[in-house]
Amino acid sequence: MYIVKIGGGSSINLQGIVADLSEADGRFVLVVGANALRDSLAERLGMPKTVLTSVSGYSSVYSDDAAIDVIMMSYAGLRSKRVVELCQRHGVNAVGLSGIDGGLVRGQRNRGIRVREGGKTLIRRDLSGKPHAVNVDLIRMLLGSGYLPVLSIPILDEAGFAINSENDDIVNVLQEALHATRIIQLIEAPGYLADRNDPASVVPSMSRAELEDREGEAEGRMKRKMLALRKLFETGAVEVIIADGRSEHPLQDALAGKGTRIQ
Amino acid sequence: MYIVKIGGGSSINLQGIVADLSEADGRFVLVVGANALRDSLAERLGMPKTVLTSVSGYSSVYSDDAAIDVIMMSYAGLRSKRVVELCQRHGVNAVGLSGIDGGLVRGQRNRGIRVREGGKTLIRRDLSGKPHAVNVDLIRMLLGSGYLPVLSIPILDEAGFAINSENDDIVNVLQEALHATRIIQLIEAPGYLADRNDPASVVPSMSRAELEDREGEAEGRMKRKMLALRKLFETGAVEVIIADGRSEHPLQDALAGKGTRIQ
Repeated sequence: MYIVKIGGGSSINLQGIVADLSEADGRFVLVVGANALRDSLAERLGMPKTVLTSVSGYSSVYSDDAAIDVIMMSYAGLRSKRVVELCQRHGVNAVGLSGIDGGLVRGQRNRGIRVREGGKTLIRRDLSGKPHAVNVDLIRMLLGSGYLPVLSIPILDEAGFAINSENDDIVNVLQEALHATRIIQLIEAPGYLADRNDPASVVPSMSRAELEDREGEAEGRMKRKMLALRKLFETGAVEVIIADGRSEHPLQDALAGKGTRIQ
Repeated sequence: MYIVKIGGGSSINLQGIVADLSEADGRFVLVVGANALRDSLAERLGMPKTVLTSVSGYSSVYSDDAAIDVIMMSYAGLRSKRVVELCQRHGVNAVGLSGIDGGLVRGQRNRGIRVREGGKTLIRRDLSGKPHAVNVDLIRMLLGSGYLPVLSIPILDEAGFAINSENDDIVNVLQEALHATRIIQLIEAPGYLADRNDPASVVPSMSRAELEDREGEAEGRMKRKMLALRKLFETGAVEVIIADGRSEHPLQDALAGKGTRIQ
């Protein structure tokens, strides 16, 4: 079982990924991103995203009701359905589901972040949270009947509300629930870069120990991504491949050894 | 088995419908409309709909690729997922699927309409068509496991492309495939009106013979709707209820005898 996480950048070659998938062996679950699409849709609708900075200095996007609308339109609507359509055109019987469909991905809503506003410290609580459970029965039922699950945000919180969540965290709970051995992350870079500004600095392979060393050196969003990678191994993944989602054959290349392989 | 078609007008009480559903007995399949949402989204995005008039005088919306984008965002995205969310909040384990997911609703693309443009007669072919088959296995699998299917456009054409289609026609193929005995249509009117301009002129019940008589008298879009209603009986429906989707308890009222009952 493979989990393929498709980045949400604008230069990801979705058509190529789906064409590769239609010729690949094995069972797949896709997790699709759409952040570039979401941002451009929000801008076109005049709904720019709100970024809050916590008292401890961390920045995060504030997901209000309108932001969930935009997520439903971009991730669960346009991106998910265009990927499903590509699959259908390639003879792959895909089913696009968000985390709220059938309670597929359940999570816990964040408690809120402490911000300074007008000289006071306030707690701002938004519609976002961390996934902690997967409806394995539904995914297995679909896989068992020959369907390809195409998953996207939003996910479901403990009260039944749709909330935003990180795809890295969703991949982690999926891996644990489905006992997937291989995780493939298709991103807008040739792999894991030793120097983030040098595309030629791809690290071809990495041990878990190296991963932890590099996590110690990383910062910000990259640190969070490295932490998510490390957790994949803690929950049982055997191999993680980080490869270029922009090439002509992203999935084929990834399976053939391009990009970064972490074992 | 009930099929509930929820109109896409802006004053439909979705919350009330879902609350009623959570307390109702029986198996349901929902078909959700979103035309008001689609139109307002298209307008906000600066993508007004194109209406073509055929040489024989019929008007129809021209669905290009951008129109399918908007359908995916509004119907399969925002509307479907907000209905699923409402269901989850009411303890109903809904799964939102478009007609392309799992090849749920397959259709044939329209051959194009003949239009006069610049003094010439041309054939303009768009991304729309008529449904003719339903993936019954997928719907039964979901129903059998306790899920509520929430269906929306687009549907899948014979080449695997996402196309626009009329919900009335989708309800017809669903009825035939699922052998649903009761169809409930929740609209922005108190029922079928003898005089379309008089909300007090609700026809409380109608025989099939009366339905055919009235179809003969109807015009334009209403005539098409009446034809769709008649077809429901030809494919085995026992009862069609047309009731107000705007009331406090739309589904409860419909099941209790309000609106128009056709038997």
